[in-house]
Amino acid sequence: MAKDKKNKVHRPKAITPKGFRDYFGSEVTERAEMLRAITDVYHRYGFDPLETSAVETVEALGKYLPDVDRPNEGVFAWQEEDSDWLALRYDLTAPLARVYAQFRNDLPTPYRRYAMGPVWRNEKPGPGRYRQFYQCDADTVGSGSVAADAEICSMLSDTLEAVGIPRGDYLVRVNNRKVLNGVMQVAGVLDPSDPDKFHSERGIVLRAIDKLDRLGLDGVRALLGEGREDASGDFTKGAGLGTEQAEVVMGFMQAKRDSKAATVARLAELVKGSDIGTKGVQELETIAELMGAQGYGPDRIEIDPSVVRGLGYYTGPVYEAELTFQIFDDKGRPRNFGSVAGGGRYDDLVKRFTGQEVPATGVSVGVDRLLAALREKGRIHSVSKGPVVVTVMDRDRMGDYQAMVADLRNAGIRAEVYLGNPKNFGNQLKYADQRDSPVAVIEGGDEQARGVVQIKDLALGARLAAEIETTEEWKAQPAQMEIARGDLVAEVRKMIARAEKGQA
Amino acid sequence: MAKDKKNKVHRPKAITPKGFRDYFGSEVTERAEMLRAITDVYHRYGFDPLETSAVETVEALGKYLPDVDRPNEGVFAWQEEDSDWLALRYDLTAPLARVYAQFRNDLPTPYRRYAMGPVWRNEKPGPGRYRQFYQCDADTVGSGSVAADAEICSMLSDTLEAVGIPRGDYLVRVNNRKVLNGVMQVAGVLDPSDPDKFHSERGIVLRAIDKLDRLGLDGVRALLGEGREDASGDFTKGAGLGTEQAEVVMGFMQAKRDSKAATVARLAELVKGSDIGTKGVQELETIAELMGAQGYGPDRIEIDPSVVRGLGYYTGPVYEAELTFQIFDDKGRPRNFGSVAGGGRYDDLVKRFTGQEVPATGVSVGVDRLLAALREKGRIHSVSKGPVVVTVMDRDRMGDYQAMVADLRNAGIRAEVYLGNPKNFGNQLKYADQRDSPVAVIEGGDEQARGVVQIKDLALGARLAAEIETTEEWKAQPAQMEIARGDLVAEVRKMIARAEKGQA
Repeated sequence: MAKDKKNKVHRPKAITPKGFRDYFGSEVTERAEMLRAITDVYHRYGFDPLETSAVETVEALGKYLPDVDRPNEGVFAWQEEDSDWLALRYDLTAPLARVYAQFRNDLPTPYRRYAMGPVWRNEKPGPGRYRQFYQCDADTVGSGSVAADAEICSMLSDTLEAVGIPRGDYLVRVNNRKVLNGVMQVAGVLDPSDPDKFHSERGIVLRAIDKLDRLGLDGVRALLGEGREDASGDFTKGAGLGTEQAEVVMGFMQAKRDSKAATVARLAELVKGSDIGTKGVQELETIAELMGAQGYGPDRIEIDPSVVRGLGYYTGPVYEAELTFQIFDDKGRPRNFGSVAGGGRYDDLVKRFTGQEVPATGVSVGVDRLLAALREKGRIHSVSKGPVVVTVMDRDRMGDYQAMVADLRNAGIRAEVYLGNPKNFGNQLKYADQRDSPVAVIEGGDEQARGVVQIKDLALGARLAAEIETTEEWKAQPAQMEIARGDLVAEVRKMIARAEKGQA
Repeated sequence: MAKDKKNKVHRPKAITPKGFRDYFGSEVTERAEMLRAITDVYHRYGFDPLETSAVETVEALGKYLPDVDRPNEGVFAWQEEDSDWLALRYDLTAPLARVYAQFRNDLPTPYRRYAMGPVWRNEKPGPGRYRQFYQCDADTVGSGSVAADAEICSMLSDTLEAVGIPRGDYLVRVNNRKVLNGVMQVAGVLDPSDPDKFHSERGIVLRAIDKLDRLGLDGVRALLGEGREDASGDFTKGAGLGTEQAEVVMGFMQAKRDSKAATVARLAELVKGSDIGTKGVQELETIAELMGAQGYGPDRIEIDPSVVRGLGYYTGPVYEAELTFQIFDDKGRPRNFGSVAGGGRYDDLVKRFTGQEVPATGVSVGVDRLLAALREKGRIHSVSKGPVVVTVMDRDRMGDYQAMVADLRNAGIRAEVYLGNPKNFGNQLKYADQRDSPVAVIEGGDEQARGVVQIKDLALGARLAAEIETTEEWKAQPAQMEIARGDLVAEVRKMIARAEKGQA
């Protein structure tokens, strides 16, 4: 028995872990290009790169994730030998706060940095919802000026246009957490003597507002009150606001009017008597003025009180970029694509470490969602092409074939020798097709003796194949031609150019 | 008491976790440029990009790390709610084997992919040794041809030259695990009836050989025998080879001769009578022939039996790129920089999942080590420059200053408004200095009234500052000039060009 067990081969499962995925070919290069386009804008705005490690101490990360229904507060965490708990970062903001607190004496103030890379969330995976995804952030740490917030909003607008979202297909929507605080004060929800209770209630309120898109007005109203049962029967506890209190918050959420001025006036009315609320409205006004002076009008940026963002750490202006065009879901129903970027002011994140207040504001672009949107709209044109494939007619002459690809590569042409089993020539051409190769090169003993090679235009060949019936015809057709070995580089280059022109 | 405890503020420590680090500014861009240069070569050779998730199941990763003195076999691992163990990848090869096994029906064969990104090792951190570092790999899966190994070696040579290591400053050294197996067979170490014992002994032998650089001949000899006590008194158990057996292995390790032919002949002698060993020597010969035919001579590639690589999964040719120039250690002693890339053939990694043999070979470039080497030799010239800084003389005119940077940015010039507290003008110029700004822009009320701005060449200013003594002189000197507001973009561009010329 024991021996049987030992000899039984245990095979590990070849699976991507649940909620993760792999990216192939153009999926990788398209994201790299998008990251380059975004960071070019960030760089032009004066931000410097920073790359922190993927791993942080759990205590440095803090507990700011919204809607956490998983252990370890939504992060992937483990305990070290020496009993420290470590975790994968869940965003790029918490690590920035740690870095600024740690290196503040050496960094310029304000410290303006951009960062890009994967972040990890230990959440229930769902369709299109992964546990690892890319963010691309820019933040200004050490500036309390709303000019810093306004700048981030205009940069966000420039960024979206730089990656290929035309004006009119997006909106940057701005709000202010201070206005929400003011509204809650007016509604009598704010109990200054118990900040913990206030924070908890405000957290439920803002997560409720954040779900307006999905739940509609009645859903939000239920969450502001006793709570809400969803379609599956799960009950989510509400903020426990009274009916009148809830209506004040609902009024805030729907305070958007036709013009910035009218929205600001309505908000000022709602927070009357609250100092913090009034300050928030003034900040919104200043942001609107600064943006307007630079020509960022309502076709790009608007004040929208329904924007609150889910994260717990924001303290002032919050902003969000929404794609305004419609897409169709699995069932063919139109829906808005929704948010692809967001951020805001978080004046207390550094203070957690140092005890000193350090104001900060910044934005995070959800790169994978943005890519999905561009693909959805057919706005990504991948230009990547497979390599020229030099086929193997005689496996003892591998050195000659390698010399051909060396010539091509040295001329900057992407090329490779077929390295699989060369026995079946059909497999070699099938491979070239699968790799989306523009050209195959063929040199048998006969060709070698005559100092020539055959080159084959694979795209043209595929088109002709539908029309040609006999092998004789095939050999006669212009997709394949015989050239002098010495002309290989020049002729392949011509054939690729012709193929590219044919596609254009 | 209880209340006191509650009110006591707990501040998290702002520290990078032990063994990890943060990368600032040019450290990030220089690595990005190197990755681009390397992947350009990989792409030209016909490899396609793949990005797997950072997280794998522990069982998919397998146990191949050498010299593991940590729990979880050297990886960072944690258990999921549903009892799966997950871990951060420790290299890019194990995930590739998983991906190929998982998607083999959809992927072309051979599957040629490149990958880049961080990997994580749960090792004791040391000076210059981090627990997260970048690798940039290329592999051909599904080809048993040594032409695939030879191609990787020439590509590795091209790659090093592409990132700025001149010919003569590096060597690609090639060996073959089959030759080592043959040598052990001849030495009587190989006991075919007990593969587990053989694997374990061979593991100790190859790790011993891998340490030749650090331990010298006597150190390796001790590890082949009973074991070795290091300077700190720690004892490492040896492979338990008898003296004669150990000498055969020592002879193998030192079998390098002046020419490839002589080395091959010497190896053939050493493995006489062993089929596997003879096959290994033949493969080395073929690789040498293929490389030679393409002009990769002994100034770039050599056969060196002392190269074995530490990882357990190699089955055939192994290769390593070594930088041959000397650097100086902390104590001023010269030492060789050593290995910056390595790889080999691993024919059984995919078989672990599928049961079917899938031959594969590939290379991994240690990007961070390579960067360190180039910095050491002063061969990295960072061209990144700070932004033009528009200073704030009057905080109520933020909109005007923002309009200036908008003009500059729209013209492609990196620029920002000073967003810190503008009260102390000296701090603004200090900030511009810290950011390495080429130009500062100054516009007070007086300038505004006259429709002009001041622009200041900060690099020139710094040079002049050493020579100028009075404020009057300062104002008169040519580092600062008054220009029309309408000429801002043109004049700033001229000043930057002048500064760059001055530096060249």
